[in-house]
Amino acid sequence: MPARLHRQATVIDGLIVSKWSRSLFEAMHAGGLTAANCTCAVWEGFDGAFRHLATWKRWLTKNDDLLLQVYSLDDIARAKREGRVGVILGWQNSAGFDEEPSFVPVFHELGLRVVQLTYHTANAAGSGCLEAFDAGLSSWGHELVAELNRAGILIDLSHVGSRTARDAIRVSKQPVAYTHCAPKALRDHPRNKTDEDLRAIAERGGVIGVTMFPPFMPRGNDSTLDDYLDAIEHVIGLAGEEQVAIGTDFTQDIDEEGLRYFTRYKGTGHALLEIGNVVNPKEFGRIEQYPNLTAAMERRGWTETRIRRVLGDNWLRLFGEVWR
Amino acid sequence: MPARLHRQATVIDGLIVSKWSRSLFEAMHAGGLTAANCTCAVWEGFDGAFRHLATWKRWLTKNDDLLLQVYSLDDIARAKREGRVGVILGWQNSAGFDEEPSFVPVFHELGLRVVQLTYHTANAAGSGCLEAFDAGLSSWGHELVAELNRAGILIDLSHVGSRTARDAIRVSKQPVAYTHCAPKALRDHPRNKTDEDLRAIAERGGVIGVTMFPPFMPRGNDSTLDDYLDAIEHVIGLAGEEQVAIGTDFTQDIDEEGLRYFTRYKGTGHALLEIGNVVNPKEFGRIEQYPNLTAAMERRGWTETRIRRVLGDNWLRLFGEVWR
Repeated sequence: MPARLHRQATVIDGLIVSKWSRSLFEAMHAGGLTAANCTCAVWEGFDGAFRHLATWKRWLTKNDDLLLQVYSLDDIARAKREGRVGVILGWQNSAGFDEEPSFVPVFHELGLRVVQLTYHTANAAGSGCLEAFDAGLSSWGHELVAELNRAGILIDLSHVGSRTARDAIRVSKQPVAYTHCAPKALRDHPRNKTDEDLRAIAERGGVIGVTMFPPFMPRGNDSTLDDYLDAIEHVIGLAGEEQVAIGTDFTQDIDEEGLRYFTRYKGTGHALLEIGNVVNPKEFGRIEQYPNLTAAMERRGWTETRIRRVLGDNWLRLFGEVWR
Repeated sequence: MPARLHRQATVIDGLIVSKWSRSLFEAMHAGGLTAANCTCAVWEGFDGAFRHLATWKRWLTKNDDLLLQVYSLDDIARAKREGRVGVILGWQNSAGFDEEPSFVPVFHELGLRVVQLTYHTANAAGSGCLEAFDAGLSSWGHELVAELNRAGILIDLSHVGSRTARDAIRVSKQPVAYTHCAPKALRDHPRNKTDEDLRAIAERGGVIGVTMFPPFMPRGNDSTLDDYLDAIEHVIGLAGEEQVAIGTDFTQDIDEEGLRYFTRYKGTGHALLEIGNVVNPKEFGRIEQYPNLTAAMERRGWTETRIRRVLGDNWLRLFGEVWR
């Protein structure tokens, strides 16, 4: 039985990219999740991204006892009230727009609410965090940022190259996010963010969702839930507790072979990074266990205000500023 | 200055496929049109149909002083109240769904409200009216009709082969339409409908939009507005005045070369039919002249009830039965 605070708080995960199924949706529900940014495209271009979105719509219809799609803050409030899980549709790649500005408001109409500019590698908009060089936001990238601002879609920079990310932070008229990232100060990994990166996004009102994806954590697969809280506290130390949130990057039910899709170029090409088997902390190894996260925050002596902010209120505030 | 009845009536055109531009939208507005089914795909498959829809969305945003998009009957009422033109987005071909049932509700969410199963030729759903043989609705065609019914998208059979059309009329759980057609009894043309065809759709509660496209009219480019009213009266004689409406098929501002796109296989292939230059009746040669249509109906001695039904109330009733 989840504790009072977990039951009452708005719990929003900044990013989940799991093997979607009825049982996964049941896990989200059992974990007392209010809403999550659910990835529906990583490598896919327009055709594939549209297909995944159409499939998601079908899942939403078939599982509407557990789920509802989030278009607005009101939908998140409704999810909380009705005890359902709010699904925020998000892309981890802007390739789905096919470099066509007019596609942005169309996907917004379908409920796309979070878009990462690039995924690992460079695309037409800019560079990814795993490229050797990063020339910054391209012409299309500038156009895209303006269109995403106009439509009211949150810009995510988690997998984006550092220079491209800085450009986007600077030119975006709205605050942006790292929906799921870990601090480089704790582990030197190309996917992790320097303290300077983290401060840069916070200074413009952005929010940082801290991931507990073991390959990016100091102790890898030996990480504990307390290691995750250490990482969150490190980021709070830099950005303040009003701009830090959770973004677990749960890959539940995806096996080792499935995970390779994320780390090979366009899913099947050359290896961009090796992550091997992923083992989450025992106490927070599954989506059903979000109550343990809240309990660990309480044990740590965090104030109720800090817990609520990190669990969901900071995402809520940012979504409220960006979505329209 | 348009006459009282034209000003007060709800005027809905069952199909327009013109060269869309600001001046065309001004023409629709000047003509006192309440709403129209505006074609945004003819030959296009998924990619092209999506692109056209995205372009339409941009036009709707940029011209929102003249236009509003119609998702529901309420939007048509709002268009009338606010003196704007309601744009009902429609496809003249179901190829845009790419034989993927899950795409149907997604396009419905974007406001697609009328879909013709086939355009001139056969596609995966069934046959077109210009094919030599027609094997009827295919397996995909049956699936598609069920999905369109479920989503609440009006099925249009104007360019569909006779047997495929009969199958669709029979299996559709909702009434369907010929949005724009002329009676074969008045001119023997493969695009025209036999009295039997017209009765078949009416018997199931469908609506017939009568076209005044000159190539399908008895006197071709010499047709007058009264010839158009003769054609409408012929259909009323078969189907009753509650199931007959207008569907002009205005191709305003499209030149002879542009018209060839509609009559060549997929726009540029072999010639399917020759229509040459299109000359509309002088009194109703342009979209600005809808008031002349209403005036001609009044001169003809039609009752106000009949005029209102044919001008728009019959479409309203059908849309109300199908859309959800």
